[in-house]
Parts: sequence; C-alpha cells; structure tokens
Amino acid sequence: MIDFYTAATPNGYKVAIFLEEAGLDYTPHFIDLGAAEQKQAEFLKINPNGRIPAIVDRTVDGGFAVFESGAILLYLAEQSGHFLPAEDQARSRTIQWLMWQMGGLGPMMGQLNVFKKYFPETIPAAIERYERESYRLFDVMEAQLAANEWLAGDAYTIADMAAWPWVAAHGWPGLTLDRHPALKAWHDRIKDRPAVVRAMQVPPRAVKTDDDAAKFVEKARTMLA
Amino acid sequence: MIDFYTAATPNGYKVAIFLEEAGLDYTPHFIDLGAAEQKQAEFLKINPNGRIPAIVDRTVDGGFAVFESGAILLYLAEQSGHFLPAEDQARSRTIQWLMWQMGGLGPMMGQLNVFKKYFPETIPAAIERYERESYRLFDVMEAQLAANEWLAGDAYTIADMAAWPWVAAHGWPGLTLDRHPALKAWHDRIKDRPAVVRAMQVPPRAVKTDDDAAKFVEKARTMLA
Repeated sequence: MIDFYTAATPNGYKVAIFLEEAGLDYTPHFIDLGAAEQKQAEFLKINPNGRIPAIVDRTVDGGFAVFESGAILLYLAEQSGHFLPAEDQARSRTIQWLMWQMGGLGPMMGQLNVFKKYFPETIPAAIERYERESYRLFDVMEAQLAANEWLAGDAYTIADMAAWPWVAAHGWPGLTLDRHPALKAWHDRIKDRPAVVRAMQVPPRAVKTDDDAAKFVEKARTMLA
Repeated sequence: MIDFYTAATPNGYKVAIFLEEAGLDYTPHFIDLGAAEQKQAEFLKINPNGRIPAIVDRTVDGGFAVFESGAILLYLAEQSGHFLPAEDQARSRTIQWLMWQMGGLGPMMGQLNVFKKYFPETIPAAIERYERESYRLFDVMEAQLAANEWLAGDAYTIADMAAWPWVAAHGWPGLTLDRHPALKAWHDRIKDRPAVVRAMQVPPRAVKTDDDAAKFVEKARTMLA
C-alpha cells in the first residue's frame, strides 16, 4: 500500500494519474495547504521541502518516503514496471521530457499563476514574461507532438503524466491551446482516459464555480504572504 | 566519446563536473548564447528545447542526444556506474534531491537572477519574492546538510553536482551563505575537489572583473528581449 499525500494542484494530480493508471493500492491523504499542514513537523519528516505531493511506500519494511513529483513518478515506475520503457534510449527520452516538465513547464506556469492570480500587486511585465515563456514551452511540445504520438515517442509514459495536469490547467492563468493543435489533440486524448478521469477526483478539483475560484484565489493569496 | 554542448552557466557546470569527476572522454563545444546559437536548427536537433547543456553520446551507434541537465546526469551516472547508488532507497533519495534541484533551486535562483540583474525594470516585489524563496531553499539544504555529509545522505552523488553550481553562484544575485553554516561547509568541501576546479574552467567562468560583469549583464539583457 502507498500512503499518498496530496492536494488539488497539478503536481498532486501527476501522481494520482500514475496510481490510477497502474492500479496500485493507495490511500489518499488530503493536505490542507491553506492551513499550512505541509509545513508541520510531522509532514516535514516525509518531505523536508514542505510541499505536496509525497508518498510513503508501506510495502517496504518500516515505510519509505519519497518527495518531489518527478522522483515519485520515477520511483513508482521502476518499482511497478509501468510507464517507463526498459530499453536504454527510450527510457532516457522519457526521463528527458520528465526533467523538462520539472524544470521548465511546471516552474514557468507556476510563476504565471502567481503573478496572474495571486500576487498582491499587478505587475504586467512579470505576467508578460511568464505568458511568453509558457507559450514558448507549448511550442516545444507542439513540435514534439506533431511528430510523435506521445511526449517521449511512441509510448504513453510518466513524461505525459507529468506534463498533462499543467497543460490541462492552461485556462486558469488565461492561456489557450488554440494555436497548438497537436498539443490540444494530445491533451484531449489523455483527458478521456478512465484512469485520468478518476485521478482528477483525488482530490475533487477545488474550483468548479466562479465562487469557488474567488475563494481559492483568496486562500492562495494568504499563502503567498 | 561524449560531445558536450555548454556555456558558462550553472546548468552547464553540473555536467562538466560529472564528466571531470567520472573521468569520461569528452569534447566540449561552447555555445554562444548571446548569438542565440542554441536556437539554431542544427542545435534544436540535439535539444528541441533550445537550451544548454546537451550531450551526444558517440559511444552509441549513430550517436544518442540527451537534453536537460538532470536527465544528462542520470544518463551518464547509469551508463558509467558512477555517483548514483545502486541500492533502491539510496538511489531514490539521490533522484529526489536531483528533482528538488531541477524543480526548485534552479528555477527560483534563475528567476532571482532575471529580476535582480537582467530585467529592464526594477520590480522590488518580484526580487523580494525570489530572494525569500531562494533562502527558503537554502534552509531546506541547511537542515539536510546539518544531519548528512551529502545532500542524499552519506555519498557524494549527482544530487550534489546538480545543486553545487547554483549554490556556488549565490553571490551573483547578492545572496549570502553566512546564515547557513552547514551549507557553506558543504559548498567549500566541493569547491576544492580537483575535478570541480577543472570543470569550472569548461568553459572558463565568464565573469572575473567588474567590467566582465557589466558586459555579461548587458548581453543577458538583450537575450531576455
């Protein structure tokens, strides 16, 4: 059994998607980011960085804690033998796109969310910087997905699972996929997978109505302070 | 032989350190970022993301290209059998800290550099945000290194090689290690390793004098535009 600590964010959904796709036995624990549960001493023993997601693999004697969404995906893929090709080059290509998501797409869209939705002042130059960078990263995916069915080539892997929740959240900071048809087709293909539909309810997505959105933004703003 | 495409940036030095530490046979190719060589069609075949570092492993039939510094470190570690523990948990701990560097320390210090040194306007709130986040990440390393000799535990690994060039560049955006004694001791321990001294000349560090610094900032500013 896997203890899975998460919240309704793209990095959390990456791991939910893997767990559902691989059919692993897991128990979700929802962390209240607004109450800063991820900064409490008990949680810092699991993730010294104080962020979600994190897991504790209870199939290992004494339990084994893993933090950082990319490291969790790689750990679960290697332990379960799913969604990471065994052959050296295909395996490395998967890890390359996983790293690209971890170091590029996630941080840049994350900064766009901060400056567009949560920051106490409106700073157009910062918003413009991160919009431009997000679209540049969409261009990189577009080129790759115009030539390949999946990000790392011909198999659906942890690289797709890492990138998808960020792409799926494009509307939150006001981005569009309209100029990226191959990216949009890939997005839609993944969205309809039954495991992904189930994963996006772990936890149920926080924002369904305009009122939810306003409350979510208000909460996120206090967390920035 | 490894073809190594790089420039004088923390992400480039990560790979230079690995190549020197492992004693691998490599040929460095210095990419002129100011001339946007990393955006040229020939280079995009090696790295579709248009960034340094990248490698082409010529020991593989036809050559095998790898991009993203974290993926290059993992590929070279697995191929060479160096600086990544074989045992499952120690291996995962190394990958967790490598991912933490890729998704946290690098992007956040990178944004601090942008807003502190290169951005056309001075935006105090953005600078303050990334200074605070950089120091939060220094705090996370401090706690880890107060309890462990190396980031991932008791062995010097690719996690240390990934984080060190960023920590070593703390002075560029005006950060200090004065309040992080364990981090500073770790930094100094790595700085004096002969392989690291050699790696930091691949390429020779761009900025040695105040005049160099002014030219470097000027060049970086044009690249942001």
